[in-house]
Amino acid sequence: MDESVLDDISHRRYNPLRGNWILVSPHRTKRPWLGQQETPGKNVLPEYDPECYLCPGNKRSGGAQNPDFKSTFTFVNDFSAVKEEQADYDPPQSDDKTSLLLKAEGVKGKCYVVCFSPAHNKTLADMPIADISTIISTWQVLYRDVQLNTPFRSIQIFENKGAAMGCSNPHPHCQAWTTSHLPEEPAAELKNMIEYQRAHGSCMLCDYLAVELEKRERIVAENEAWVALCPWWAFWPFETLVLSKRCIKNILELESDRDRELFAEIISNVTTKYDNLFETQFPYSMGIHQAPLKGTEEEHAANHVHLHFLPPLLRSATVKKFQVGYELLAEPQRDITPEQAARRLQSQSTELYEESWG
Amino acid sequence: MDESVLDDISHRRYNPLRGNWILVSPHRTKRPWLGQQETPGKNVLPEYDPECYLCPGNKRSGGAQNPDFKSTFTFVNDFSAVKEEQADYDPPQSDDKTSLLLKAEGVKGKCYVVCFSPAHNKTLADMPIADISTIISTWQVLYRDVQLNTPFRSIQIFENKGAAMGCSNPHPHCQAWTTSHLPEEPAAELKNMIEYQRAHGSCMLCDYLAVELEKRERIVAENEAWVALCPWWAFWPFETLVLSKRCIKNILELESDRDRELFAEIISNVTTKYDNLFETQFPYSMGIHQAPLKGTEEEHAANHVHLHFLPPLLRSATVKKFQVGYELLAEPQRDITPEQAARRLQSQSTELYEESWG
Ligand SMILES: O=P(O)(O)O[C@H]1O[C@H](CO)[C@@H](O)[C@H](O)[C@H]1O
Ligand SMILES: O=P(O)(O)O[C@H]1O[C@H](CO)[C@@H](O)[C@H](O)[C@H]1O
Repeated sequence: MDESVLDDISHRRYNPLRGNWILVSPHRTKRPWLGQQETPGKNVLPEYDPECYLCPGNKRSGGAQNPDFKSTFTFVNDFSAVKEEQADYDPPQSDDKTSLLLKAEGVKGKCYVVCFSPAHNKTLADMPIADISTIISTWQVLYRDVQLNTPFRSIQIFENKGAAMGCSNPHPHCQAWTTSHLPEEPAAELKNMIEYQRAHGSCMLCDYLAVELEKRERIVAENEAWVALCPWWAFWPFETLVLSKRCIKNILELESDRDRELFAEIISNVTTKYDNLFETQFPYSMGIHQAPLKGTEEEHAANHVHLHFLPPLLRSATVKKFQVGYELLAEPQRDITPEQAARRLQSQSTELYEESWG
Repeated sequence: MDESVLDDISHRRYNPLRGNWILVSPHRTKRPWLGQQETPGKNVLPEYDPECYLCPGNKRSGGAQNPDFKSTFTFVNDFSAVKEEQADYDPPQSDDKTSLLLKAEGVKGKCYVVCFSPAHNKTLADMPIADISTIISTWQVLYRDVQLNTPFRSIQIFENKGAAMGCSNPHPHCQAWTTSHLPEEPAAELKNMIEYQRAHGSCMLCDYLAVELEKRERIVAENEAWVALCPWWAFWPFETLVLSKRCIKNILELESDRDRELFAEIISNVTTKYDNLFETQFPYSMGIHQAPLKGTEEEHAANHVHLHFLPPLLRSATVKKFQVGYELLAEPQRDITPEQAARRLQSQSTELYEESWG
C-alpha cells in the first residue's frame, strides 16, 4: 500500500478504536494566522505558593487544610461533578414521545484530585522518573481502592495541563472521576475492541501496535515495555497514543518497580519531547483508558491499557488548533499529517530544554 | 414525569439527534475560577480596516483583490481544507491487518467564505433584519449552485465568531465547506433521524418541537416560523437549537421574502440575546444542518432544517467552559442545566445592549 500521496491530498482517516473519521488537510498550515494567541507556558512559579489550594499545609476553598505531604496527595474534589449520595431519579419507562425524547438517568460517583508533588512549580516533564513512578503507584492504590470499596463501574484518570486546557491551577495534579456508568468514550472504544476481538480473534491494539512497529513511521518514543506514537487517526496536531507492549488490561498489572519505572519513563519522554518541541510548557489533556472496574469477562479481555495525550498547539507555543465550527458541526479536521507530527516529535531530545529550569 | 429533581442531582441526558450522552452537574458552578480568562469582545473596530483581507477593495493573502462589494460577497477560500482537483487515493481493498487498521479515503470538495457585510465592525446581532435576509439569500444561491454545478454530496455552512472560537478575522463572515462525502456529524444525525422515522412514522425534530412547545421550559425565542431553545441535551452552557416549525428539508424551501425575514428575525433574536447576556460580543460556532445536496429520498425526507449555536462562555464575558480532560476522554459534561440557561436567555431583551453601538 503506497500512502505517500496522503502527504499532498485531502483525505479522511478512520479511527477504529473510537469508530470515527477525521479529515486531514496536509497543505493547510500555509494560511496566515491573525487569530487568538495563547500565553506561552514558562516556568516562573515559586516552589511554594501561599495562595495555592494544592500546596502542602494550605487551606482549600472547601475549608479543609492540606497535610504537609512530601510526595503525592489524594483527596476528594471540593467541587465534585458527581457525588456518592444524592436523590434518585427513576423516570417511568413509558414509550410516549416525552420520555422517549427527554431521556435522563441519575449518575453517582466520586471525584478525586491527585497532587503529583508538593512542589508548586513542577510538571511531569520536570520530574525524575522515580517521582513519576510514585504517581503511578498512587494511581494503582486509587484504582484498587475504588474497585474494592465502591459500587462504581468506571474510573477516568486524566490531567489537564496548562491554561489553554482549562487547568485552573498550575500546581501539578491530575483528577480521577469515578462513576456508576461507563462514560461515552471508553464505552465506544470498548464496543469497538470487543467487536474486533470477535471478528478477528485478536486484540485490536496489539494488532495495531504490530503494524506500527513494522512501519516505524509514526513512532515518537519507545522502551522495552511501551511505545508512544502519533496514531494514524490522530485528531489533535501532536496527539500521541501510548501503548503497552504487553496486553495488560489495567494499571494494576504493572506489578514490579521495574514495570512502573518503564511506564514512568515513557511518560517522561513524551512530556519532555512535547516541552522541547516549542520550548514551552506544552499544554495537553491526558487520560488513561483501561478495563472498567466492574464488567464482564469479555469487557476485561478486550481491553488494552493506553494513554491519550491531546495537546492543542499547532504551530508554535502561542498558536493552537481550534476545534470549532467545521470540527464541531461536521467533522474533526487536522492540518498536518500524523507522520509529519511524529517526525518532529521523534527528533526531539528526551533531555528537557534549558530555560524551563531557570 | 417529574424532572425537577434534575435541578439538584448529577445525571446524564441523552441526545437522540446525535446519539450520545451528556453528564450534567448542576451544583458545580460554585467552584472558584482561577484559570484562563478570555478577552471580552467589545466593538471598538473601524468600519473599514485597510489591513483586513475581507474588507471591500483590499488584497487577500492569495493575491486576489476583493471587489467593492455593497452587501454580501462570496469567494473560494484561499486556504481551502479541501480542493476540487487532486490526485486519487485508491487503497487496495484487501483484508490484511494493515489495510484494516490504516484506513483512509480521498476527499474532494470546495471551501467558500461568505462576507456578511462590507462593514468590518458589524455582527449578526448588530445587523438589521433586512441585511440578515440578504445573507440567507446568499446561502440559498450557494446551496443551489453547489447542488447544480458540482458532484459534491454535502455543504456545511458555519460561522466561527470571536477569538475564543478560533476566528482569525473579526470581519463578519461565515464559511461553507462542500465535500464529496457526508461528514461525521450530519451523517450521525441523519442516521438517527432515519431510524426514528422508521420506528415511529414521524419526524424526530417535529416530535421534539411539539414536546418543547407544550412544556415551554427551554424556549429562548419564537416567531411564526421558528423556535430557538436550549435543547434537553445541550452540551455547551448556553447552547441553542433553532428549529423550523414547518418541516422543511433545506434552506431552499424558504421561498418568500417573508420566509427569509422570519428566519433572519430568529437569528437576530438569538445572537442579540447572547450579546446581552454578558454584555459582550458573545463568541460561538454556529452551523446549519439540512438535507444533503445529493442523497436518497429517505435521507431527504428524514431531514428537518436546524441551526446549532455552540457558545463557550459559562459565567461571564471572560470565563468559558473548557471541554477538555474528562469531556474529551470520557464524556461531555456541563455545569448548569439547560433549563437554567434557557431561563436566563429567555429573559434577555431582543434590543442590543447599549455599549456595543459606541
Ligand atoms: O478557516 P479559519 O477561520 O481560518 O479557521 C478556523 O475555522 C476552521 C474551521 O472550523 C478551523 O479548522 C480552524 O482551526 C479555525 O481557526
Ligand atoms: O476541575 P477543574 O480542573 O477545575 O476543571 C477543568 O477540568 C474539568 C474536567 O475536564 C472541566 O469540566 C472544566 O471545564 C475544566 O476547567
